[in-house]
Amino acid sequence: MPVDQALSQLLSSARSHAAQPVDDLPLEQALGHVLAAPVIAAHDVPPWDNSAMDGYALNSSDAEQARRQGLQVSQRITAGMAPTPLQPGTCARIFTGAPLPAGADCVEMQENIELTDNGLARLIQAVQPGQNVRPQGQDVRSGSTLLPAGLRLRPQDLGVIASVGLARVAVRRPLRVAVVSTGDELVEPGAALLPGQIYNSNRFTLIGALQRLGQQIIDGGILPDDKAQTSARLRALAEQADLIISSGGVSVGEADCLGQVLREQGEVALWKLAIKPGKPFTLGRFADTPLLGLPGNPAATLVTFLLLVRPYLLTRLGCNQVDAVSYQLPAEFDWPRSGSRDEYLRAGLRDGRVVLSGNQSSGVLSSASQGSGLVLITAGSTVAAGESVPFLPFSGLLD
Amino acid sequence: MPVDQALSQLLSSARSHAAQPVDDLPLEQALGHVLAAPVIAAHDVPPWDNSAMDGYALNSSDAEQARRQGLQVSQRITAGMAPTPLQPGTCARIFTGAPLPAGADCVEMQENIELTDNGLARLIQAVQPGQNVRPQGQDVRSGSTLLPAGLRLRPQDLGVIASVGLARVAVRRPLRVAVVSTGDELVEPGAALLPGQIYNSNRFTLIGALQRLGQQIIDGGILPDDKAQTSARLRALAEQADLIISSGGVSVGEADCLGQVLREQGEVALWKLAIKPGKPFTLGRFADTPLLGLPGNPAATLVTFLLLVRPYLLTRLGCNQVDAVSYQLPAEFDWPRSGSRDEYLRAGLRDGRVVLSGNQSSGVLSSASQGSGLVLITAGSTVAAGESVPFLPFSGLLD
Repeated sequence: MPVDQALSQLLSSARSHAAQPVDDLPLEQALGHVLAAPVIAAHDVPPWDNSAMDGYALNSSDAEQARRQGLQVSQRITAGMAPTPLQPGTCARIFTGAPLPAGADCVEMQENIELTDNGLARLIQAVQPGQNVRPQGQDVRSGSTLLPAGLRLRPQDLGVIASVGLARVAVRRPLRVAVVSTGDELVEPGAALLPGQIYNSNRFTLIGALQRLGQQIIDGGILPDDKAQTSARLRALAEQADLIISSGGVSVGEADCLGQVLREQGEVALWKLAIKPGKPFTLGRFADTPLLGLPGNPAATLVTFLLLVRPYLLTRLGCNQVDAVSYQLPAEFDWPRSGSRDEYLRAGLRDGRVVLSGNQSSGVLSSASQGSGLVLITAGSTVAAGESVPFLPFSGLLD
Repeated sequence: MPVDQALSQLLSSARSHAAQPVDDLPLEQALGHVLAAPVIAAHDVPPWDNSAMDGYALNSSDAEQARRQGLQVSQRITAGMAPTPLQPGTCARIFTGAPLPAGADCVEMQENIELTDNGLARLIQAVQPGQNVRPQGQDVRSGSTLLPAGLRLRPQDLGVIASVGLARVAVRRPLRVAVVSTGDELVEPGAALLPGQIYNSNRFTLIGALQRLGQQIIDGGILPDDKAQTSARLRALAEQADLIISSGGVSVGEADCLGQVLREQGEVALWKLAIKPGKPFTLGRFADTPLLGLPGNPAATLVTFLLLVRPYLLTRLGCNQVDAVSYQLPAEFDWPRSGSRDEYLRAGLRDGRVVLSGNQSSGVLSSASQGSGLVLITAGSTVAAGESVPFLPFSGLLD
């Protein structure tokens, strides 16, 4: 199955769920959450014309008099003060951020003002209307849509929301995601390794990725190789979770207990994705909770999470931007053999060019730690050094 | 002052501090933390040769016999089992992830095996030594450096650490960062706005950015416009914090209480950075705690945080990668007027080309919410549509 087709089925499945409940959070806790509704400005930002400089506010029609004789300084306005209207024919001492008094239309910076012996402020050069004034509503107009529903909040978005006076924001509640691993060979790190066993690494990759995306994690541990126990464990997790993610291939194999339980008691669609690493991918369901089954190879778990699970999660949260960001950058490598699947190689950047980072086997995770992203070699294509290739930085894939 | 020079002074100041204490954290809590020491592998990964397929393990020297007559299946090895050595002249039923028995050197997938009526496994095509075998140590060699000190841990790094059996990891303790705002015009969101006042937005931008970088935040509120109170507040914060970040220009102006207190009771260097937005930037110190003073304009606060404060913070944590990632991408805009400062414009991407996102005034933050990164127009240069420009995605700047 082409990856695009799998993704489109996954996203359509994600959209079929009821919207997540809405939480009203203080801004300090809202980072990374998805806006449940547009943010509408109740105020102009800035709320009034204000000075961009420390200087003197005047009406530009008085500029000629200000250059010849100077103007009387009739008030002093610091930031936070409410000024009185400017007396005609005078100027006001003003500081950065302070509101412009009614009647003034420009500010001259203090470096260009000469104070005469009798206390008049004299301009030493011409001024323009609007000069050094930050006009009311320059940033945001009252009533305008500041931020759209579906935006995942970044630091600057919190600043924008605060700028219109909102201390709380309505966001979608994160998903409760149960993470389970399968495989009798798995042992949790910290324990001793017996012959034939390997350490469970996927659990930590998945937990980390879910933490980065701000989801709530339910640790489902390692599923036992026993149908009754697997079924009981799935049932308990399905009750608590909005989604179950498993790693360790659900296959048609004899030694695949999770697959058997899903086939008998739930639903399961097993996809052979045209992607490398990551061919076997499962969309299943148990007791009405969806299950995404990732392949067990560590690099395949990572790649399928980033390319398929992340957009699925974000879609369930109503996020309006779920595509992976990629940049067309020159390759510093040759890839002379075309394959039948889209291949995502672990890669990094050197002087703006894409370099491959170590062993590309789907069992090898360390090359993902050496790299900073993935490079896509599309099915059927080859790459010669210098040609442009799509580079997907991990920072964008985990954003 | 050129931005490069400011950054180099800041980083050298950051390096002059004692290293942060080391915390020994469970992997589940280590995401985003900086490794205090290299992670050395105590095991090979995988720890033994194992099968990449469900199939049959044999010695390739028996392949000829296996094709003609078939081989007796002398054991069945599932993942997690410790196999016995392979009886010469036989094969073993084997499943994905199961250890290869001593004496076998390849695996044929089950689809290419015919079982004869008397239970022999017959190859239907040739096999190569090593075929479908994931060799011991393919991912990681015991004793090798898996991850370097100074790495900020991403999900896949947690997976790599787990894969060698480590359940905990030594990381640098995050910085305690006090955030203060200055300006009598500031009001916290949620309160009513009186004439002349504006809402404090920088605090939320800064808190969000510090959360993204995993630092501990001490909310220092808004500093009062009173020297004694400012001094007392700074002293209290300096005792708790590893760093104070202020927004709202420390200037030479009369109405600048923080600047006066720093000059009289601490240290302060005021830089006019050749950067737009963000000219006035302060490196100060109060009671031995460093203070970074950011300009008060919202876009300037954001840009100087991303370009200067982030690398400073990461350097204090011993991070080995502090540079902002940028991509050379074609501009979809013209910028015909060169300036005397490096200008960071808020921008987004459309079909792989850089587009500007709204009002570029340093007072305007909403354009940073509309965009997905910054584009650098170097001092003295212009841009014509189609030319390459450096694009710095926010996801990388907050990574």
